[in-house]
Amino acid sequence: MHFVFLGTASCFPTPSRGVSCLALRWDTSGDVWLFDCGEGSQIQLQRSFLKPGKISKIFVTHLHGDHVFGLPGLLCTLGNGCVSEDKVVHVFGPLGIKKLVKTSLELSQSQLPFRCVFHELVPRRDQLESSDTYVDIDRLKWQGGESDVDDEEIEFHETLRCWRLTEEKSGSPLVVAGALRHRIPSFAYVISEPDQPGSLNVEKLLELGLPPGPKYAQLKRGKAVYVEKDEELTLVTPEQALGPPKRGRKVAVLGDTCDDTEIVDLCADCDLVVHEATMEETLKEKAVEYGHSTPKMAAEFAAAVGAKRLCLTHVSPRYKPISSTEVDKRDSSAQVLLNEARQYLDELKYTNCEVLIAEDFFELSLEKRQ
Amino acid sequence: MHFVFLGTASCFPTPSRGVSCLALRWDTSGDVWLFDCGEGSQIQLQRSFLKPGKISKIFVTHLHGDHVFGLPGLLCTLGNGCVSEDKVVHVFGPLGIKKLVKTSLELSQSQLPFRCVFHELVPRRDQLESSDTYVDIDRLKWQGGESDVDDEEIEFHETLRCWRLTEEKSGSPLVVAGALRHRIPSFAYVISEPDQPGSLNVEKLLELGLPPGPKYAQLKRGKAVYVEKDEELTLVTPEQALGPPKRGRKVAVLGDTCDDTEIVDLCADCDLVVHEATMEETLKEKAVEYGHSTPKMAAEFAAAVGAKRLCLTHVSPRYKPISSTEVDKRDSSAQVLLNEARQYLDELKYTNCEVLIAEDFFELSLEKRQ
Repeated sequence: MHFVFLGTASCFPTPSRGVSCLALRWDTSGDVWLFDCGEGSQIQLQRSFLKPGKISKIFVTHLHGDHVFGLPGLLCTLGNGCVSEDKVVHVFGPLGIKKLVKTSLELSQSQLPFRCVFHELVPRRDQLESSDTYVDIDRLKWQGGESDVDDEEIEFHETLRCWRLTEEKSGSPLVVAGALRHRIPSFAYVISEPDQPGSLNVEKLLELGLPPGPKYAQLKRGKAVYVEKDEELTLVTPEQALGPPKRGRKVAVLGDTCDDTEIVDLCADCDLVVHEATMEETLKEKAVEYGHSTPKMAAEFAAAVGAKRLCLTHVSPRYKPISSTEVDKRDSSAQVLLNEARQYLDELKYTNCEVLIAEDFFELSLEKRQ
Repeated sequence: MHFVFLGTASCFPTPSRGVSCLALRWDTSGDVWLFDCGEGSQIQLQRSFLKPGKISKIFVTHLHGDHVFGLPGLLCTLGNGCVSEDKVVHVFGPLGIKKLVKTSLELSQSQLPFRCVFHELVPRRDQLESSDTYVDIDRLKWQGGESDVDDEEIEFHETLRCWRLTEEKSGSPLVVAGALRHRIPSFAYVISEPDQPGSLNVEKLLELGLPPGPKYAQLKRGKAVYVEKDEELTLVTPEQALGPPKRGRKVAVLGDTCDDTEIVDLCADCDLVVHEATMEETLKEKAVEYGHSTPKMAAEFAAAVGAKRLCLTHVSPRYKPISSTEVDKRDSSAQVLLNEARQYLDELKYTNCEVLIAEDFFELSLEKRQ
């Protein structure tokens, strides 16, 4: 899993930071997933090594313009020779994302030459009611024109306390969404790779009389096999043959939020948490008033879920990128935010978590767990 | 009148060219008018010397994404401390522009702290019928939610053969729109400054017995004044006192088009024509298929209207900007387009027209006529 931060600004884009867009490139398939798509994301994408034609899923955390106004343009550009006609692009986002995109496409008479399937998360009533302005749920729905047959609305799952975005298929990552408190319905996306079977204990298998062959693959797939040794058939179970299962990687990408407590359980034991940290702790009141977090709040969350890595993003334009600030002046750069999060985790004596802060085109690789 | 080309690409933005956006800064008021607002225009604006808070009018030529998808984001950013609350921003564009902007603002729950008044040009039936896909006129209208009381729909004026966007007020420029043939309804905006009174002939006035004073201003305003000389009252008329009137400047900014013949009369005697020239003449068939022009077509128009200057823009990504191409390799750059237009005007022996080609941040000043 290779992450490329294409936009790390809060609120509006500047020449030094694009607005929210994070790309995840999967090692094996090369598929690219995007998280948010603020204005100008398609230009940032062109500046990176990523291939636009590999985008297969786009997850939108919430409908504020700095997270979504780049989506109609990106889809048009993908349709402009970037992707083949048999391609399907899946867009996940809060109810309203389909109306926003389809209205723009219809009015600009842009017909996408590929399939674009919308999966809309229906916000709970409490999310709608605590929004800046109450928008009736019917006004969030795309009313006119054709839709893809596979478009769907996903309701909150009361027992699991999340929205389930993918079906469990062997080998595929599971994606669920959790609710965040912000000024409008906002979501966190949690991606979990399935656990992989442990390594084969070849030495032991040879002892049991099983040389390398197709039965090894059967054991790997979790099936017991018969082995003939000394003219006797014995059953060898996967438990006998395999080491402990390898845990899949788990990542949480949070949308804007001033309160993430509801999703702590959902995000337990994450390898990586991507969390907004718009303003420093002394400005907490202002940050929270606008529905945002400080680095300390992000660090609190990382500690609560036992994260191995915390990457801060969504930085107010008041903080210059560290890399474009002279070393002796970094006290007024985004370094402040990074230091605050680190310091707070040190105070908690939670030293297992690496803290990072994203700038545009910052890259981060997540190796498979051992 | 000072023009700054903020985006000069066709189709989609690239790191070397933004999509369509042209700023006009008025000398005296400092007001900024924008023509089109493709994705990323607000970032280009920040890169220029222009003050976003001075934007007072935005003219959209047509609803293709590369001309309009930057508008919701720009308005949100203007609302974010750039403009005062008593500010009014006027948006002119084809019917549908209000629905496009208001849908995006409503879904993102973005409330503008200033007034935004929409003036929608109602396309003629022939424009709708010749579009890529026929869209019923009702589907172009914003249905829900509040609108500004001054929002208006402007119908085509059969006698004047144009849409009238501004009322005639003394001193203010007149703006009208004409119809272009493209794949969807597309418009050209024509801005005409009112003529100014000629210079006062001070020598003659002194001869007539009128020393400098308030009566000079009255004459400038077109009023006759009495002069007492040798105990006799005589009437001095403006015609006696003023030189020939100074013609106001006239500019035409065209949207995408493959046929501009309808607006030749409307654009007669322009000081500046801004015309798209997407592809070179050998690709004319392809250009016209997609509703676009070649440099030769743009030059034909400039000659037909008797333009003093022709500025080409809306350049296909296949042509690199001249300034970023090595001198000996410019045959494959946008230089090709510039050369074609120049050559054609030379063939026509129409040598009064200066030909230019825009790159991002190219500036052009239009002095008052003498």
